[in-house]
Amino acid sequence: MKVEPGRTRVGWIGTGVMGSSMASHLLQAGFHTTVFSRTRSKAQSLMEAGADWADSPRRVAEQSDVVFAIVGFPADVREAFLGPEGILDGCSPGQIVVDMTTSEPSLAEEIAEQAEQKGVVALDAPVSGGDLGARQGTLSIMVGGDAKAFEALGPCWAAMGDTIVRQGGPGAGQHTKMVNQTLIATNMIGVCEALLYGHRAGLDLETVLRSVASGAAGSWALSHLGPRIIENDFDPGFFVEHFIKDMGIALTEANQRGLALPGLALAKQLYEALKAQGHGRSGTQALLLALASLSDLDWTQRGQ
Amino acid sequence: MKVEPGRTRVGWIGTGVMGSSMASHLLQAGFHTTVFSRTRSKAQSLMEAGADWADSPRRVAEQSDVVFAIVGFPADVREAFLGPEGILDGCSPGQIVVDMTTSEPSLAEEIAEQAEQKGVVALDAPVSGGDLGARQGTLSIMVGGDAKAFEALGPCWAAMGDTIVRQGGPGAGQHTKMVNQTLIATNMIGVCEALLYGHRAGLDLETVLRSVASGAAGSWALSHLGPRIIENDFDPGFFVEHFIKDMGIALTEANQRGLALPGLALAKQLYEALKAQGHGRSGTQALLLALASLSDLDWTQRGQ
Repeated sequence: MKVEPGRTRVGWIGTGVMGSSMASHLLQAGFHTTVFSRTRSKAQSLMEAGADWADSPRRVAEQSDVVFAIVGFPADVREAFLGPEGILDGCSPGQIVVDMTTSEPSLAEEIAEQAEQKGVVALDAPVSGGDLGARQGTLSIMVGGDAKAFEALGPCWAAMGDTIVRQGGPGAGQHTKMVNQTLIATNMIGVCEALLYGHRAGLDLETVLRSVASGAAGSWALSHLGPRIIENDFDPGFFVEHFIKDMGIALTEANQRGLALPGLALAKQLYEALKAQGHGRSGTQALLLALASLSDLDWTQRGQ
Repeated sequence: MKVEPGRTRVGWIGTGVMGSSMASHLLQAGFHTTVFSRTRSKAQSLMEAGADWADSPRRVAEQSDVVFAIVGFPADVREAFLGPEGILDGCSPGQIVVDMTTSEPSLAEEIAEQAEQKGVVALDAPVSGGDLGARQGTLSIMVGGDAKAFEALGPCWAAMGDTIVRQGGPGAGQHTKMVNQTLIATNMIGVCEALLYGHRAGLDLETVLRSVASGAAGSWALSHLGPRIIENDFDPGFFVEHFIKDMGIALTEANQRGLALPGLALAKQLYEALKAQGHGRSGTQALLLALASLSDLDWTQRGQ
């Protein structure tokens, strides 16, 4: 398939914070785009920018050459791709379908197999970079699946991201995203515990960051989320409840492969506690609040 | 005190990997330097570069205006500063003494108090940046203690480091280093578990790093130690047994302040296991081997 703006018809399923920005880049690049979202109002801005509406994932697929989806949970992915009004139901041989949701590697393999039986190529292509990366078109896109289809979609990837790497066959994109989330999860414990220590030791935390942020202790999370924690800003970014979903997938996949990951398991339990404390829709940096609560420390009231 | 090369006499206690490089920068900056080390042969290169030898910390202090020490463990710090042939025994009013060892904040406070009784100012000034930062003079120096003495030592700090921040009164430098080590300890679990996951999922780890190293999962440890782990390079860098010492100090200080740090506690236990497996003198990135052993995985034989 030769993919190019003006010629290739693109379909898009899922118009949340990430999906809306990503689809808008494809529109801006000149791709004719048909969208579906469970909540039609969330697709309004894309339609005003020129996208067509279709009433189901199946109908999107019928009107597209390439279909992208970014939805919520693995059950949503299953429904969107494999359900009765799903994408594969509307596909014809030669089409490419791409799941950009962070989802189960095993489900990515299952979709790829069912797609192949219809002569369709399915790729898994989860992303990192958050809402900001989606808006700016600077996502890291981690791709699993057929190499030729990956190459063909070059103009689409380039519209959405700037770090685009094929990691292997079906599921390899999802596995790479699990590596990404494992890194973030455990490091976030360190960022939060370090700030709690510094506070309890009587240090000025902004001054502390000047000493530790650029050296061997440095990380993206420390530099970007550390200052937000210090300012009591726990807004999302990335939702705690979505992160818990990701950690659950990573632990299940690891355990199925005979691999124990105690740090990730601890992180997931601490995030479960955070969710139980009412922070499922806070940003991941709110982990500090669960760790503070262990020691009966009220972080947001600490200066008063 | 006006501190300047050619006029101010500097003393240096401890000529290990870090201390030798740091003292050599003071010599190169033009400070007359007197050294002592428990193993005299380790001071040989400094003496060849123009340093004088003295037979004890006390004698170093007697021949210096400012005395720096960087030794091994808190017991060594206590002996060097407060022991019968120690630095404070040889000090006169107006001198400045500086402990650059990573050591106990409470010991830093004790040394500062005893120094004050003699009219001497003691600073705690642990560093991060490792052997490379010491050689290149690019250390982060985290200082606790008297503000005027901190300012006076500007020419000395500038010879050894490039990120030089006073964090507060006595002990604040050590507390900031504990923040630094807490960040490193927990993040290292994430780096190792993520690489184990990627390996068990069948991914090519160098390709994975291309996707995850520069985004929200990125960290100094991932970029600098991840490739060494992939290459089975577990040489120090920074010794496991010294890192265990640091984590023990941080946990004790946290617990004394009514603060529970479950991530740091897990990290210390995993590093204790690593040491028990014979890796006390390996680099901190060898944590991967302890985590691999949990799942009966022989990392260094994985490709064969």
